[in-house]
Amino acid sequence: MNVTILNIGDELLIGQVVNTNAAQMSQMLTQAGMTVAGVFTIGDCAEDIRNYLHHCLAISDAVLMTGGLGPTKDDITKKTLCDFFGSELYENAEALENVRRIVASHGRELTETNRLQAWVPRCCTMINNVLGTAPCMWFETNDRPSKVVVSLPGVPFEMVNLMETEVVPRLQEHFAVGAIVNKNLLLHGIGESFLSDLIEPWELALPENIRLAYLPQPGLMKLRLTARGANSATLQRQISEAVSALYPIAGQYIMGEDAESLPELVAHAMAMSGRTLATAESCTGGNIAAKLTALTGASAYFRGGVVAYSNEVKESALGVRHETLVRHGAVSEATVREMAAGVRERLGADFAVATTGVAGPGGGTPEKPVGTVWIAVASAAGVTAELLHLTGRRAQIVERTCNAVFAALLRTVRE
Amino acid sequence: MNVTILNIGDELLIGQVVNTNAAQMSQMLTQAGMTVAGVFTIGDCAEDIRNYLHHCLAISDAVLMTGGLGPTKDDITKKTLCDFFGSELYENAEALENVRRIVASHGRELTETNRLQAWVPRCCTMINNVLGTAPCMWFETNDRPSKVVVSLPGVPFEMVNLMETEVVPRLQEHFAVGAIVNKNLLLHGIGESFLSDLIEPWELALPENIRLAYLPQPGLMKLRLTARGANSATLQRQISEAVSALYPIAGQYIMGEDAESLPELVAHAMAMSGRTLATAESCTGGNIAAKLTALTGASAYFRGGVVAYSNEVKESALGVRHETLVRHGAVSEATVREMAAGVRERLGADFAVATTGVAGPGGGTPEKPVGTVWIAVASAAGVTAELLHLTGRRAQIVERTCNAVFAALLRTVRE
Repeated sequence: MNVTILNIGDELLIGQVVNTNAAQMSQMLTQAGMTVAGVFTIGDCAEDIRNYLHHCLAISDAVLMTGGLGPTKDDITKKTLCDFFGSELYENAEALENVRRIVASHGRELTETNRLQAWVPRCCTMINNVLGTAPCMWFETNDRPSKVVVSLPGVPFEMVNLMETEVVPRLQEHFAVGAIVNKNLLLHGIGESFLSDLIEPWELALPENIRLAYLPQPGLMKLRLTARGANSATLQRQISEAVSALYPIAGQYIMGEDAESLPELVAHAMAMSGRTLATAESCTGGNIAAKLTALTGASAYFRGGVVAYSNEVKESALGVRHETLVRHGAVSEATVREMAAGVRERLGADFAVATTGVAGPGGGTPEKPVGTVWIAVASAAGVTAELLHLTGRRAQIVERTCNAVFAALLRTVRE
Repeated sequence: MNVTILNIGDELLIGQVVNTNAAQMSQMLTQAGMTVAGVFTIGDCAEDIRNYLHHCLAISDAVLMTGGLGPTKDDITKKTLCDFFGSELYENAEALENVRRIVASHGRELTETNRLQAWVPRCCTMINNVLGTAPCMWFETNDRPSKVVVSLPGVPFEMVNLMETEVVPRLQEHFAVGAIVNKNLLLHGIGESFLSDLIEPWELALPENIRLAYLPQPGLMKLRLTARGANSATLQRQISEAVSALYPIAGQYIMGEDAESLPELVAHAMAMSGRTLATAESCTGGNIAAKLTALTGASAYFRGGVVAYSNEVKESALGVRHETLVRHGAVSEATVREMAAGVRERLGADFAVATTGVAGPGGGTPEKPVGTVWIAVASAAGVTAELLHLTGRRAQIVERTCNAVFAALLRTVRE
């Protein structure tokens, strides 16, 4: 069963907004056993919407549209869909009640512009959007079997909630979708080319119904195995066998399974250990703390951290010795060790991590060029430090540093 | 002059990777005076690549492709392009030298898989990718005037560098592109519907060659004016007049111009003031520090911060009084004021900001439901605090809190 995604909005074509909706929708659809045949991003233009709606209906069984449902002049999706299906707009009572509730929750009066949000085409099934004022609309074509067009709001959390609770279950039911099993492996410490050479014989021996995807991120490689078939239990067994066969070949790089990111593995490992964590960040500037606290439940193990951007703060808030900074510099093994040990002691944590480096673009020297980063992990057993030579721009260097820290921490916690 | 973007990769269709390339490319092309007619995302499938290449060439003057250039089995773009243009692959000496240099910089030997990266179709112009092993390829069709197809690597920082230094300048020259002027305004404290009602008369009075886009983000509204025409100076004057006319209507919400985010405005305001900043974060978990340090030059004003996730750290690292936490709770005006004053004093900064709140999904109570957030700004003049009632999921609540903090800080610094 094929789905196409049609994201509408001038803001996507001028590049002011990153299309995160496409990725989130694709992930939900794929994991629900549907195949995304293509993603099309077009502007707020009635003719383009009509043309690509025709094209998407020609190549897929269902079209999921987002965007263009706001109350502003440039939002024309609803009117265009109404014309496309030869219908007319009416004020839906349930949608109006929802708009009224949301506007009231912001302590405001209902305006005429707000009220327009509750108008939908007569021929669609209105799906209430409890998190926002733009309703979701479900259309079915006259084909046999009928195809489906769904119009969703472009606001990401509204779209996600509607997909999870309404649209994906309704699609699975309407199209009687087959079984699918996914498996993610997170690897650290090996690049795409070298991994590809290493696991080629294993990859060639995979069953035909299992597909492998390389999903590289800065400082992290995600391998995704996708098995399709009739029977979930069989697919699950096939996947388990394939993963078991990979460990003898590449096990040293595998940080964990069934996670989207290393912070998820850190959260799990910390929860299993019952211990606590503190962070001392210089070049990562708060990103390690932000990534850990992005996951719910971080408060169970994360005590807090210090972003020590200036040398004075490294001394006053972390207890790094002035002589260490003078003799070795801020980017040095001695400094990163004192940062990790200092934050562990001052914040009263079982484990601590620290970073200091040159994230660029400025600040590099011949001895310590951009990409020179020291990381450390402190525990009751002592402090271990590691020197990284990273490439890329500032954001990539920060990302790679975070992933190296998470990998080093995982190895320490699991010991 | 119309451009289409064709992003290739199964990883995009299964939603494991967010297509940030589309947004970055669209932004660069739009700001260079080109119009993006559509963005198409398809899988690593030769037939789809051929079909959409034909479609894109039919509706646009240039097609920019990304992805599918890696050394792994599922990367087939190069072979497909070679067939499409009826050419053959050869080993390009300059590309090989580049691959050799990059592999050597990682301290590794050149493998056969690495070497395959240097093969390109004879009919293309090879554009060297100094940041990665996959070369960029420029093709021209036999049409009059000739259309252009460019194949770029999918790795974001490699693509960005090639676009900036090679592809955009070559496209502007090849197609003799007209003038364009963009203007961004960042607004805080008003939602899309209410802003739309407020500025409707102004919007209707805009010259026909100026287009307005609403670009809402959590807790922030970006308005983008785009003027097209023959003469840059005329467009600049039109834009200035339009912006001047907006201030009497909505000036109280306008935080600044010509910036992509509030942290950019904060960085500018701090640099102008010559003062320093410190942060004390609870519910934002390091995001304020991470957003500020994502911009180069943050070290000129940012001394550092404390992520005080646990109450013990609020006391020990920020000096919040135990009685305050016991009597008022961690999410309270009294606590946020002591956090801001404490971090300002301990880190020796001129300004300080603090956050404490319930980001959810757990932790809410009837008195302090999810979305209850206190923020504070401390300066030599004292501490001001503000209570926010936010909606959305954890990530949105964090984003909205960050933007509220940046807006409050900007008002204080500018006073």
